[in-house]
Amino acid sequence: MNAKLKWLREKMKMLDMQGMIVTNPVNIRYLTGIVAEGTLLITRKENIFLTDARYVEEVNSILTIEDEILVQEFHNYTQEEFESFFLFCENVGFEEDYVTYSQYKQYMHQYKINNLQETEKAIEKQRMIKDEKEIEKITKACEITDQCFSYLLKFIKVGQSEKEIAFEIQKFFQMHGAEGNAFEPIVASGKNSSKPHAIPTNKKIDIGDPITIDFGCKYEGYCADMTRTIFVGYVPEAIKEIYDLVLKNQLQTAKELKEGANIKIVSRMVENDFKLHGYDLVHSLGHGVGLDIHEYPYLHGKNDSFLKEKMVLTNEPGIYLPGKFGVRIEDTVLITKSGCINLTKSDKNYIIVEGK
Amino acid sequence: MNAKLKWLREKMKMLDMQGMIVTNPVNIRYLTGIVAEGTLLITRKENIFLTDARYVEEVNSILTIEDEILVQEFHNYTQEEFESFFLFCENVGFEEDYVTYSQYKQYMHQYKINNLQETEKAIEKQRMIKDEKEIEKITKACEITDQCFSYLLKFIKVGQSEKEIAFEIQKFFQMHGAEGNAFEPIVASGKNSSKPHAIPTNKKIDIGDPITIDFGCKYEGYCADMTRTIFVGYVPEAIKEIYDLVLKNQLQTAKELKEGANIKIVSRMVENDFKLHGYDLVHSLGHGVGLDIHEYPYLHGKNDSFLKEKMVLTNEPGIYLPGKFGVRIEDTVLITKSGCINLTKSDKNYIIVEGK
Repeated sequence: MNAKLKWLREKMKMLDMQGMIVTNPVNIRYLTGIVAEGTLLITRKENIFLTDARYVEEVNSILTIEDEILVQEFHNYTQEEFESFFLFCENVGFEEDYVTYSQYKQYMHQYKINNLQETEKAIEKQRMIKDEKEIEKITKACEITDQCFSYLLKFIKVGQSEKEIAFEIQKFFQMHGAEGNAFEPIVASGKNSSKPHAIPTNKKIDIGDPITIDFGCKYEGYCADMTRTIFVGYVPEAIKEIYDLVLKNQLQTAKELKEGANIKIVSRMVENDFKLHGYDLVHSLGHGVGLDIHEYPYLHGKNDSFLKEKMVLTNEPGIYLPGKFGVRIEDTVLITKSGCINLTKSDKNYIIVEGK
Repeated sequence: MNAKLKWLREKMKMLDMQGMIVTNPVNIRYLTGIVAEGTLLITRKENIFLTDARYVEEVNSILTIEDEILVQEFHNYTQEEFESFFLFCENVGFEEDYVTYSQYKQYMHQYKINNLQETEKAIEKQRMIKDEKEIEKITKACEITDQCFSYLLKFIKVGQSEKEIAFEIQKFFQMHGAEGNAFEPIVASGKNSSKPHAIPTNKKIDIGDPITIDFGCKYEGYCADMTRTIFVGYVPEAIKEIYDLVLKNQLQTAKELKEGANIKIVSRMVENDFKLHGYDLVHSLGHGVGLDIHEYPYLHGKNDSFLKEKMVLTNEPGIYLPGKFGVRIEDTVLITKSGCINLTKSDKNYIIVEGK
């Protein structure tokens, strides 16, 4: 059995659970490597992946005996057999934040469970700490994202639309070994850069535009996340103060991020420095990155918890002046005992593309 | 108040519900036109859209007084005020197939609801019957999809990868007034066409390949869905029998689809004709199309219900020979009293692209 399933069985013991139903496909992938529709049952004796006929062969082909996961076809079971899975189990865990109310009722009925018990995102919280293989995959995703950025600096031309640039990002990822976008890229130029969550439009790139590009690829299930605000032709004077302030805080945050750092204190440090200069941090300072693009931990001024070694998260301060422009600078970083390592490594000084 | 909200209030009366919480964003869009994160509360006296500060201005800008929808900021409410929304309501409906178990508990707690009652997909079932505006939007989505198909016949060249063609589809949609893909397009060439749900690969198009292209755009929220299997250079003799059989059944199905038709009987007609020739219908014959790409009704041999005027659905028989090739031909159609109207109108006879 792999380390992650062993961890889950230990965790279940601590929670006095004799069984668990894992429904969230991201959690199933995390625990087993399986990418297929189905449900993972952790019973007293076995780990069983219940799926439909389409997937049995494919899933079996990626598992070995050492995985100790039985792949079973859902439709082969009778009601009686379903009831036997969790026989004599007092408490069976489920994912209350993923399972719908209908599914919850169906589980109760189908498995005849005495006490279907909430697990309070136990797996999602464990996913915060990455193992070596996970770090390798995220590192690779970040490398491809950096390569894409270098490519974009040569690709971007005056007259292209934001949408065209967004297409090019997706195409680059899929052509260079990634699965594709980890999320829909943001390409926000000129005034559009003042919207933190802008969607690419038909607006054409012009000389003097800042362009905020927030993008990242997915590699073997794992995400990268990077933002740079670049400039076409020249850096407008009016934006320099804000760019410098965002960059200063991004670099300062990178110094603070390490095992034991308090998330609230780091976030408030940026909030306070922005306020001192008359600006607000309107979104959170960062978030965990892994199989999901947004996962635990969330970095904001109300999160009074502490960073741990092998967390992977984003460092992304930003300032936005509505109707004018905005600047965000973001890296994906790996937390270590003594500091953090930028996994995305693209330049953060003023970047000017000629655009001709 | 618009006709859809009036319908919902009538439906609630029939179900003896004095209030309802609508959480599924597709249902909220259907009922109100609102595209934003939030929750729609139907109380005894009011329709209230609870959202966060980011969306209030935008949502208010698309609503008029006649909509009778109050847009309120979630965070402005105290626990006491939340409890007042459904005061003296015996039964309040919720979407048990969308709401998670956690949300369910939160609703119970936050709104202090006496009986939070399942609504059994009442809104999803109502969405089956489209009004004039919805039909217009789907028709437009189908037109753009047809245009894209014409474009592809000129675009496709030997040596391009399936992925490149899939990109081109997305790009065409976004550049021609659609929001983008209604779903990730399938471009499956050669042997890959034998997988009904193939994902575009790096395989390059070659002379003699069949290419199954399953695609459709989204226009103002509404989807189109069309499939054609086309040929590069020539039509391989071995595939002709299957192509002809699929096309015959697709045309025959189109004749059967009309108000009052029994879904089971139509589906079994195709299943039986396929079996007679030694083949199986391995997926359903079709599905409803609207704000979701797959919605009610589902056309398969176990659905003993009847079609109604103004339903929009797909007609998509297919035959797949594992390891060899496959053929699927699909249109989006509008059900009328006397028959059905193909909303996607591209040619269905053998289509050969030169590919040079």
